Amino acid sequence: MSKIKVAMMQTKVFADKMENIRQAERMLSGIMGEKPDLVTLPEMFNCPYQTSNFPIYAEPEKGPVWEACSALAKKFHIYFSAGSMPEMDENGNVYNTAYVFDREGNQIAKHRKVHLFDIEVKGGQCFKESDTLTPGDRVTVFDTEFGKMGLCVCYDLRFPELARLMVLEGAKVIVVPAAFNMTTGPAHWEILFRTRALDNQAYVLGTAPARDLELGYTSWGHTVAVSPWGDIMKQLDEKEGYILTELDLDRVEQVRDQLPLLKHRRTDLYTLMHAEFRRD
Amino acid sequence: MSKIKVAMMQTKVFADKMENIRQAERMLSGIMGEKPDLVTLPEMFNCPYQTSNFPIYAEPEKGPVWEACSALAKKFHIYFSAGSMPEMDENGNVYNTAYVFDREGNQIAKHRKVHLFDIEVKGGQCFKESDTLTPGDRVTVFDTEFGKMGLCVCYDLRFPELARLMVLEGAKVIVVPAAFNMTTGPAHWEILFRTRALDNQAYVLGTAPARDLELGYTSWGHTVAVSPWGDIMKQLDEKEGYILTELDLDRVEQVRDQLPLLKHRRTDLYTLMHAEFRRD
Repeated sequence: MSKIKVAMMQTKVFADKMENIRQAERMLSGIMGEKPDLVTLPEMFNCPYQTSNFPIYAEPEKGPVWEACSALAKKFHIYFSAGSMPEMDENGNVYNTAYVFDREGNQIAKHRKVHLFDIEVKGGQCFKESDTLTPGDRVTVFDTEFGKMGLCVCYDLRFPELARLMVLEGAKVIVVPAAFNMTTGPAHWEILFRTRALDNQAYVLGTAPARDLELGYTSWGHTVAVSPWGDIMKQLDEKEGYILTELDLDRVEQVRDQLPLLKHRRTDLYTLMHAEFRRD
Repeated sequence: MSKIKVAMMQTKVFADKMENIRQAERMLSGIMGEKPDLVTLPEMFNCPYQTSNFPIYAEPEKGPVWEACSALAKKFHIYFSAGSMPEMDENGNVYNTAYVFDREGNQIAKHRKVHLFDIEVKGGQCFKESDTLTPGDRVTVFDTEFGKMGLCVCYDLRFPELARLMVLEGAKVIVVPAAFNMTTGPAHWEILFRTRALDNQAYVLGTAPARDLELGYTSWGHTVAVSPWGDIMKQLDEKEGYILTELDLDRVEQVRDQLPLLKHRRTDLYTLMHAEFRRD
């Protein structure tokens, strides 16, 4: 199976946590005629994106939102990248966590955002996730019936090391729940998704929330699917909606044959690896 | 001194090796009124880009072309990135080598292309540098009165590890003699220069030969200067010409303060370093 039908849902974010689940279910119901294999949601799809909200909305793994997402995966028989959501661990630490479920509703991947978004652009965006979030400590790659995929969250994509490590571990698709803003979005959203795809010759899928000017953090939107040649396959504007597209994993192999970047890496000159020390 | 006046010369490539030097001198003479601090030339500026030509045009370090470039640097009192040229070592190995000279004509950097361009795009470009070239074994960073700069050649730019290592060693400007073709140029030239600048928050300067349809390898041209925010400052089309621009190194610090990507790298999670083994 080299072809994957993908639906990427650019949903609104409601203040009512469970309304976000109902919205996802409504959109999923409308898409199901297309028989997608993989469905994606945005970063913090169930929590208006503000540092002060993260501890309030946070749930442990297997909390109500997690359970609802698992149930949706099973009900619709899809691989489900349930965006990201605030997760609280047993010590009260809060993470920006992305889960992926298989067609039976089993969790097959969990990624806690490892690079926290602390930015202060003069005359532009200021934001400090580390005020309330704890970073994760893992590079995340998971298995599917289609092969391996990588998973990271938004700002993680800024760091070429992370995507490269996923690909060196076998990922041919990288799934990225994300929410760029009105400063970084127009400047860098498109190029970052294209670049990681191009450098690593993998499909890269970025799913963002729809823009809502009434929220404190304004999402750039522009949910996007990029091919392993670095071309934009489909991209939304800022409004609610979804992308339907098909990933052909044979195309990954073709591109890697024609322009063998991964083989041409000079591993005798430089090494990139997981550091041995991990905090948890 | 935080401001560097740069002139990037998109020259033609003549079959007569020394005519390329005369052309460079003519263009330099015309530019000197602008008082550039750093002047750049393209990849293989003195040798029509074909694998069969490289051994024929090759000279040892301090050969006639090297001497002429050193003399131009001294004459015009400039930092001179003399593009790249075929270099032959004492064992007869040929390299795609970039030299940089200081204002006195002293060689202050030498980079032998470390990633050789072996590509076979169906219905597009086929090229195999490794037929006649030997790769280098160094990551190249050099000192100037303005601070540190990195140096690599064309296809080297495809590999995020290399630019990252230069920047981790202090480079705020990366100089790249390059010559993309009519397949990879329109697809990837611009994004690769923008990306390395954006990810590393450094100026990146790509200097290409002017297009000449009578040569075996057709250069995309499009000599380009990119800011540390990933914006294109200036870009040429395919014709002979030059870019005059100014790099403000304070801008590098500003961007790195506002969006501290280099500080946010998770070096406890991944490490990127020079490998200890080197062949030479």
